[in-house]
Formats: sequence, structure tokens, C-alpha cells
Amino acid sequence: MSTEPVARIHRDLPLQVTAVVIENAQPVVDGGRFSAKAIAGDPLSVSADVFTHGHDIVRAVARTRHSGARRWSTAPMHSDGNDRFSGTVIPQTEGPFEIEISGCVDELATWARDARRRVEARRPDPFEAEVGARLLGEAAAALASSGASEAAARVDELAALAKAAVTTKLLNAIAKAGGALALRAMPAVGTVAYRMKAVADRPRAAFSTWYELFPRSASSDPRRPGTLIDVIARLDYVAGLGFDVLYLPPVHPIGTTARKGKGNKTTAHAGDVGSPWAIGSAAGGHTAIAPELGTLEDFDALVGEAAARGLEIALDLAFQCSPDHPWVSEHPEWFGHRPDGSIECAENPPKRYEDIYPIDFSTPDREALWRALADVVFFWTKHGVRIFRVDNPHTKPFAFWEWLIGEVKREIPEVLFLSEAFTRPKVMHRLAKLGFDQSYTYFTWRNSKWELEEYFRELTSTPGVAYFRPNVWPNTPDILAESLQHGGRPSFITRLVLAAGLCANYGIYGPLFELCWDEPAAPFSEEYRHSEKYEVHHHDLADKSSIAAVITRVNAARRAYPALQRDTGLHFHHVDNDQILCWSKRSGAGDCVIGVVNLDPKWAQSGFVHLDAGAIGLDPGVDFAVNDALNGERYSWVAGENFLKLDPKSMPAHLLAIEATA
Amino acid sequence: MSTEPVARIHRDLPLQVTAVVIENAQPVVDGGRFSAKAIAGDPLSVSADVFTHGHDIVRAVARTRHSGARRWSTAPMHSDGNDRFSGTVIPQTEGPFEIEISGCVDELATWARDARRRVEARRPDPFEAEVGARLLGEAAAALASSGASEAAARVDELAALAKAAVTTKLLNAIAKAGGALALRAMPAVGTVAYRMKAVADRPRAAFSTWYELFPRSASSDPRRPGTLIDVIARLDYVAGLGFDVLYLPPVHPIGTTARKGKGNKTTAHAGDVGSPWAIGSAAGGHTAIAPELGTLEDFDALVGEAAARGLEIALDLAFQCSPDHPWVSEHPEWFGHRPDGSIECAENPPKRYEDIYPIDFSTPDREALWRALADVVFFWTKHGVRIFRVDNPHTKPFAFWEWLIGEVKREIPEVLFLSEAFTRPKVMHRLAKLGFDQSYTYFTWRNSKWELEEYFRELTSTPGVAYFRPNVWPNTPDILAESLQHGGRPSFITRLVLAAGLCANYGIYGPLFELCWDEPAAPFSEEYRHSEKYEVHHHDLADKSSIAAVITRVNAARRAYPALQRDTGLHFHHVDNDQILCWSKRSGAGDCVIGVVNLDPKWAQSGFVHLDAGAIGLDPGVDFAVNDALNGERYSWVAGENFLKLDPKSMPAHLLAIEATA
Repeated sequence: MSTEPVARIHRDLPLQVTAVVIENAQPVVDGGRFSAKAIAGDPLSVSADVFTHGHDIVRAVARTRHSGARRWSTAPMHSDGNDRFSGTVIPQTEGPFEIEISGCVDELATWARDARRRVEARRPDPFEAEVGARLLGEAAAALASSGASEAAARVDELAALAKAAVTTKLLNAIAKAGGALALRAMPAVGTVAYRMKAVADRPRAAFSTWYELFPRSASSDPRRPGTLIDVIARLDYVAGLGFDVLYLPPVHPIGTTARKGKGNKTTAHAGDVGSPWAIGSAAGGHTAIAPELGTLEDFDALVGEAAARGLEIALDLAFQCSPDHPWVSEHPEWFGHRPDGSIECAENPPKRYEDIYPIDFSTPDREALWRALADVVFFWTKHGVRIFRVDNPHTKPFAFWEWLIGEVKREIPEVLFLSEAFTRPKVMHRLAKLGFDQSYTYFTWRNSKWELEEYFRELTSTPGVAYFRPNVWPNTPDILAESLQHGGRPSFITRLVLAAGLCANYGIYGPLFELCWDEPAAPFSEEYRHSEKYEVHHHDLADKSSIAAVITRVNAARRAYPALQRDTGLHFHHVDNDQILCWSKRSGAGDCVIGVVNLDPKWAQSGFVHLDAGAIGLDPGVDFAVNDALNGERYSWVAGENFLKLDPKSMPAHLLAIEATA
Repeated sequence: MSTEPVARIHRDLPLQVTAVVIENAQPVVDGGRFSAKAIAGDPLSVSADVFTHGHDIVRAVARTRHSGARRWSTAPMHSDGNDRFSGTVIPQTEGPFEIEISGCVDELATWARDARRRVEARRPDPFEAEVGARLLGEAAAALASSGASEAAARVDELAALAKAAVTTKLLNAIAKAGGALALRAMPAVGTVAYRMKAVADRPRAAFSTWYELFPRSASSDPRRPGTLIDVIARLDYVAGLGFDVLYLPPVHPIGTTARKGKGNKTTAHAGDVGSPWAIGSAAGGHTAIAPELGTLEDFDALVGEAAARGLEIALDLAFQCSPDHPWVSEHPEWFGHRPDGSIECAENPPKRYEDIYPIDFSTPDREALWRALADVVFFWTKHGVRIFRVDNPHTKPFAFWEWLIGEVKREIPEVLFLSEAFTRPKVMHRLAKLGFDQSYTYFTWRNSKWELEEYFRELTSTPGVAYFRPNVWPNTPDILAESLQHGGRPSFITRLVLAAGLCANYGIYGPLFELCWDEPAAPFSEEYRHSEKYEVHHHDLADKSSIAAVITRVNAARRAYPALQRDTGLHFHHVDNDQILCWSKRSGAGDCVIGVVNLDPKWAQSGFVHLDAGAIGLDPGVDFAVNDALNGERYSWVAGENFLKLDPKSMPAHLLAIEATA
């Protein structure tokens, strides 16, 4: 009796029956909506669950090519168990690239495994030799056609042997040839491919050391404000400290209408210099240099002199206008209007920014507006700028930034954008996903041991690690962190070592940082007293309070040790004292740096550090030598329990490079 | 000076500028590749990150409709903080449905918040009244056009008040009206919608109690094997134990070629009955009843009599054939062939299943084959079957199951499929994603306290909870679990209470389970001795070893307490004895059941249970009364530390329903 046809409601059958499944591929950002980030020349781990129904053996391969390229480079993937496969691809140049993971059933390996079981159980299959010889013959042909003639010849020999008899010896020979067989072209059985998109940036996207200064406070002559020429004179100092990015607040003409006075007062007095973020005057807008700072030629000279010292100039991209900006009269439709026709000033109630007009990104004339803004970026790239720190990107539409960064990077892939967004976590992450290369973080407000451990675990774990590159700052012109206000010099050193030792991208706002300025505008305020945002300062760089020597040593260590140049390989070690934080960072190449910090700026703290030997790449109990980057001294440590004492009066931290095992 | 056009490389601008972002929506399975699962009539939580740039207040709404329906039902979503919004939708009937999350900027709420800040800071805006009146007027109009005339009138009053002056009193009134305002139609500013797909099943998909028996062992007459008529006679017993699904191994004709003998021997002797999974003989295939069991009319009678007792019959879907199946001669191309033209028997080397031919799902004739297999399902649905337990789905292509289940559920949404796949986790999950309603689990081999806690935490947490419904079995005809072999009666009771108390879907293979059969085929084997897969048994259901009375009590508790009817609200409580496991389950309605089990079948164990008051919905330290479902006794417990002792000689478990606080 055969099946009676009971119902006839069948729809189209799927095309492919024995399809391999590829699930949970990494790195994928929001299901492929955004590109994962990588560094040109750096290995990038790719992985996926790859499996099929039944018991067949599955093989997986990763391929990569730059967008627009024809040829793929192939990388093997190996099984990590539990149907997970992983491998490594290396983008060779900057720009977008594709990754493709393919999976297929390995008929030959499946047969060889089953044949071995039958042979060992003495349950021979009468067709063993016939099937084995056929599969090996097919593999040899595939190898030959892909140009691997030597391997093909070897597999052809195995096919001939199989035709005679399938023995344990033959199966061992096949297992030994596995590598060669796996390299042959993917067969047709169940092949499935999963395509991912990524973008490779230049190494500075992952490893950068920033110094921020106000050019008008860079004068060495206390009788006059600084200029771009004074900044050139200061380059040796900044480069000597070991920085590689010099970031300048806006250098454009500053408006006079509603100019802010000292200390953010709403009325300015004669001689008040205004906020550099109130951009635009009769002297020009976002593509002009403030006359009091110099000329475009001075700026070009600054870029060139900086480059000669290994320093890049980063500009501030603050897309907003003073009431005197040329755009206000030329393009009034680019701004929001109030019921009486006047232009709205910026506000975040109850705060008002009378000296600033926000741009209306949704204006009906937005095509012209957006193009003008992109042209600002292209203007400065023509003048050699390749890094932009973007002011308050979270107050402008996401769609604008995605469009702008895409436009710029399509032309000049090496341009980097740092997102100044100390805002809600999901907004910060969205900005990173849509294209910002680096992002400010909450480091500035993470002070206690558990806060720091938790936050850096989050920053260095999935899913954010695929697209979010943190850049940590102990201070900025907007933030004199509470942690710096009461601890004096030791707290500056501690925050420096934390920032520079925990994160591959960090920056300081100087010279206030190295001179240990710690006076807030008011109790409980995080604004600086006499903020440089509204007035000119003169600094004595040679002041004995300066921690410049420590900064120089820390930055030298960052250049010396690859472990400090990426945000991978971070591990926190147990210390039986909540005031002492200990971590290690280990590079793919194996070099390892251990950081230890006393979080208490007042008192000496001591305790036992329990080093996890595995995390630092040593066997438990092994003795090893370390070199302290902060003072050049050598100590003997053990991959286990170490007693230490850190006295803030001398030095509140160690930054220890592992030199050699004893 | 205006911006010079430096480059002209701009591409198309995005259409929408101020778009709200919706990210990380739940429940979404594999980025929308598969449907999330729900129960008709059950609330389903939906959530997403919803935000925009800047400081605007964002509002989110969820809508749902059954596929093909026109009208949406709308459900509010509320902010959980950190830009996360959540809400609840309730699918009303079975079948696929859509969920849509919409987000938009709430201009009115944003203005009201900012106006309040300005009013409180005494920094008035000269246009406050004008802007407020306009926004309130727009809200009133939207409410009126959506039929909410009463709310519209109230908001119109507020608009009139605003026109006069924006005061704290008015802002308070707006805040109070918030509920009404939030119900108005979504405005146009930045509205974005995210569509998700889900499928609603009938409640039995989430809550079912299975009993498996071999019909041929159901005879009450020891002189002859059982028939379907004998199964009818046993329905009162099974229903009396409290089960609602009676699952029968295959009831089809059994092949004689290469029939297996007792104990899975490769040669059968005269009188050997063969394995029911060797389906098909001259008497028919997958749509026939084995002559020794009865007729199709007997089967129809069984389905009807079962239904009269609240029992559903579940059939076994084993898509494989004995060499005598009619398809073997009618459709030889549906099977795999060896080099000599013979058909391959099933194997998983070194094991061979000589009495079974696997079907070749990739056959060139697969359209006819797949339709024939679907017709098998439809044949039995015509005979009233609505539940299928699928044998070894993991050895057939995923694409086949996705197609088959889709075909069947499109016609008859209430059909349920249980996946018998004790295989690799990712394969089990894939089967659940593609449509299986329930899945066997590793419960059978999870014995120690940490194993059970870890495994059930995994089963009840994301992401699997969106699509994977576990069905746990202490034993099956294939598995006499090691945990049952050495612990005697107490171990059977313990495994029963664990299965029935931890999981809303569970089953036992009887009567061997309730009669505490514990003899393996060989030491270290998990096969039953004298396995019913190959021979007929006669059971004395009245044997004094039976734990039928305990099963009856446990199943009655499952019917009485909603907390045991879903896999949500599970929490493990700390016990200072590793042999005692304690958990609680709490329903959305608030009822709560506490399970406690002594995992040591030999010795009495005692210890302190530290109840987490929050997890059981009580205040810390509160006294409360519990009713023990296993013996009907009442105890006084406290939402804190409770001492208890469980002696396997009397009863190794409690199943405690919280009755009332003292």
C-alpha cells in the first residue's frame, strides 16, 4: 500500500537540500548594517558556527579582498569544537574590504573517518576500496586543476593504494595528507558562503597618543597671546613628551556678538578673547584662520613642522556658528528660526549658549548645507590634516555623520574621526558603528577599582570591540575630573598610568595636566577655574610641579611595547587590597606589560598581587625579571604571589615590562 | 568669507535626516531569518533600544497583527532607562504574526521638559506660550482625528491655557495628561518602524505532559501481545496519572527482511516482533497500521476515546523504511545506492542498522519524495493527530524540515512537532529555529546540582528562549539514564520532580518508569535489558514498586499552578548542601511553587535553604504557608533561612505551593 495523496498544498521546494549552515559569524555589526573595524596589516579573527545535519565532517575557509578587487586571499579556518570554526585574515591596505566564510561537507574526510571505524571494528564494507579510490581521485584532480601538482601526485598515489585495499596504514597516510587535501578547491556538496563587510584603517586608528593645547596660550612671551608660530616653537616640547597627535581647539575667527567673558560670563569686557567654539566673524568661517593666531600659511608651516617631528595636527570639527559667521547672512535658511524670525541660539535648558547658533541639519536646503560642511573637511585635508576631533557629534543627526564620514573616507581612507560624545552609551556606540574611528569614553569618571575593572572589561569585550575604539582622557578643557581635584601630583600620575597603560588611545589636555592644575571653578564643579576656553594663559613649562618626565617615560614605554599598542590581551589580576589595581596587557607577538597603581593618592598601600600566570604567558610559579618603565629599575617577580608597596609620596605606580624568565 | 568648494564628490544624501534609531529589538531570531515563538493568549515581551541624536524625548509603540490581517493592535512601550523601551503584545490566535516597533521624537514632551527647566531657572523664553499652544493644539487635533474626542477636548483646554501663560501649574497638568497624549497618533518627526516576525502556537506547545508506551506491551492478557484496543483500555490509567499527551512509537507494519531479534541481535528468531522503527511491509508503509496492532478504525477509535479523556495521541514520525516498505520497490530512486546497485542500509559506523534503509532526501526525484512525506503527515492529521514526535530529525536536511513544518502549519497551525535530537547543541537549536515546537534536551544526563542549575539557567535565558522550548525526559526507550540505574525508587521520584517541577514540558516512558525498571542491557550501558524496542512485555501496573501515586500528585500540581506551566520565572536558591537543589518558579500572575530535591538517593541530607525573597515575590523575613503537592501536608516557611531534611527512604523531595503569608 502506498501513500495516499491526502493534500496537495505544497509550495516551492528549497533549491539546495544539503546546505551547510553558517551562523553567528564574527565580526558582524548589527547583522551587517555596519562595517566591522580592522587595522591594515593586523590579523583579524573571524569565526562562525559551521555545521550540517547528520554526522558529516564539515570544512570551513575564510577569504578576503578589498572592495573592488577581483582576487580573494584565502585563509584556513580550524575547528574550535562545538561546531565553531575560526581563522585569521589580514587586510593589507586601508579602506573597505569583504570577508567571506565558506563551509562545505568534506566527503573525503567523512569517508576516511567512517572507513577507519569500520576497519577497526572489523566490519568491512565491500565497496570501501572503490569509494575511497574515487574520492581520492577527485581530490587529486581538484588539486591538479588548482595548480598544486605536487600534492595532486601524492594524493593520486593514495588513490592507487586505495584501489588495492583500504588499510589502517592507508588511512593514516590520508590523515597525514590532510593539510594538502584541505587546501584543495571547495567541493560542491552543500557549499554555503556568508559575506561580511569590514573596513581597515591605518594603525594610528588603534594606537595614538594625543596632546591638546590652546594655541593662544602657547606664547612664551607673557606680554602677548600665542599664535600658530608659537605652537611651532612648542612642537619640540610636545614631541619630546612622546605624543604623536597634537589636537587644537578651533583655530577659526571668533564671533564678537554675544561673546562670552571670562569664566563663561554672558557679558564680555574689552580684551576678552571669546570661546574658540563660537566660530565665525567678518574674518571668515570654518575654513579661515583666526587673524590673532596667524595665517593659513602659518598653519601649513605648522602641519609641516609637526610632521617633521612625527606629530600629526588634529583639528576640531565644531559644526556650529557664531552670530557673525558668514553663513548666517549668506544662508539664513541653514539655521532654526523663532516665531519672530530671529535665529535660535543653542540651548540645553536651563543652559543657553548665546554666542552660538546651532545649524539646522534638516533644512530644506540641506543638500547645499551638507555639501558645504563636507567641503570644510576637504578644505583642511588639502592642508594636510588627516585627523579630526568632532565636537558634540551626538547633537547632530546620525544620518549626517554616516554620510559625511563615508564621503571623506571614500576619497581619503586615512582620515580619522574622533567622536567627542560623553553621552548615553547607546548613542556613543551608534556613532562608532556609523563610522567614527575613535570615541571618548567614561574613563574620566571611572575611579574606583571595581569601576575601572568593570569598564575596561566592557570596552575590551564583544560586541563593541568590533567597532568601538576607546580613547581615554584624564582631563579635557571641559572636565577637571573630580579624581584630580583632591589628590595632587600623585593623582595625576595615577590617572596618566591608568590611561596610557590600559588603553592604546589616550590623550591629555596640557599643559594644565602635566602642571597638575587642580582648581575647579567652584566646589563640586568640574569646570576649570580661569578656564582657557575664555581667556589666555601663560604657562611655565619648567615649573617643578611638572610631571613631564613621567609622561615622557610612559609614552616611551608605549612606543617600545606592542602590548600597549592595541586594546586586546587585557587581564586584571587579583590584589588583596581594594586601593591597588593590577592589570596586564599582552600582544599577539607575546610581549607583556604589567601595570600596578595605588588609587589612594594620600597613603602608601601594600598587598599581595596574585598574577594569573596564563594571562601573562608564563608557567605558574616561574620567576621573571621586569623593567619598570617609570624609573628604569629592574625587579624580580614571580608568576604567582608578589608582595608590593606603593607610596604616593615617591611613585604611586609601576609599569613593568616583562624582560625574561630567570 | 564663505566656504570654498574644494571637492565635488558627494553622493546621494539620505532621505530622512532626523530618524529615530531602533536597535537590538527582541525577540528577533538570527536577525529575522526565523520567527520568534509565542503562545496564543500569552503576553509576549517586546523591547528595543530606541533613541535619536541630541536631547529630544523619544516615544515608542509596539503594534501587532496576524499575518494577512489588516488591522493592528497597538500596545504602549515604556522606557526602562538607558534608551531601552519595552512593552507587551498578546497574539490572540494561532499562526504567524507580525510585530512592529515604532519610535519617534515626542516634540510636545520635549518642549514641556525644556519649558519646565526654563520656568524653574527663571530664564523665560518670550515664545514659550506661542510654541506651547501650537504643540498642544496639534496634539488635540491628532487626538480628535483618531476618535479620542474626550482627550482632545481636555488637551484643547490646555492649549488655551498655554496661550495665556506657560506656568508650572500648566506643565503639571500636561504631565498628568501624559497618558492621553501618548495615545495619540504617532507624529511624523523621525518616525521609524522595525518589523519582526513571530508565530503563536496553542498553549500545549508550552505546557504538555507526555506518556510514552508501546501498544504491543499494553495487553492485560499475558498470553497475547497488546493492540490499539488494549491501549484504549489503558487510557483511564494514563489520564488518571495526569498526562495530556500519549505518545506511541511507530504503529506501522514492521519489515521482516533483516528484522532485528531480541536485544538488537542481527538475527531474528521465529516469533520475534521486530523494531517498530523498521517501517513498512507488504501490509503498507507510513500510512498503514500494523495488522498485529489493529486497524485504522481502531486507531480512529483510540484518538476519539483519548480526546474524551483530555488526552492527545502523538505519533512518531520516523522517515526511514524497512527493506520491505512499498516505496523501496515503487520508488527505488528515493534511496541511496551502492556501487553494485543495492540500497545502502543505515549506519553510523561502526553501528549498522540492517533493518532500515535511510531515505535520500537529495534524490533527483525529491519533489515527489518530499510531497509523499508531507502527505504522510496530512494523512494522520485527517485522522485527528495534532502532535508528532519526530525521530532523528538531525540526520535529515534542515531545509526539508523547514519546508515540511511550514507546509503543515500553514494549513493546520495547531499541529505540534517535537524534535528528538539528542545531538550537538547548535544542531538542536537550528531545528528549533526552523520550526520545531519542542525539543528533547540533555536533561537526561544532567545529574549534579551545578549541572542542573547551569543547564536550566541556559534553557531559560536568551537568546534560545525566543525559539527553543525544552521537553525533558528522565528516560526513553533508548535511554535508561545512569542516574536511574543505582538509586532505586528514590532516584525515580527525584528525577520525576526535577523534570516536572523545572520544565513546563516533560515526559516519561512508561510503565517502565513508574515501575522503576533499572536494569541495563550491560554494565555501563544505557540500553534497557529486554528492551521493548525488540520484544513484547506485560506489566503489572499494580506492582507495589509503582510510583504512580507520586506521579498523579505531581501532575495534579502542574495543572493547579500556572507557575509550573511556563518556563519563565525560574530561580535557584542557595542551599548549604551540594546534595540539595532548591528552585522556585513564579508565574506572571504571581503564584509561586518551590521545589526542593535530595539528589542523594541513599542517605538523608539536611541543610539550610536561603530563599531569595524577591524571586518568590515576598518581602524578606516574611513567614508564609506552603502546601506540599507530594503529600498534601502544610508547612510554615520564611522568606529567608529555612532548615530542612529530606530522607530518600520516605520522600526525597518537596514541591511546595506558596499559599498565603502569615
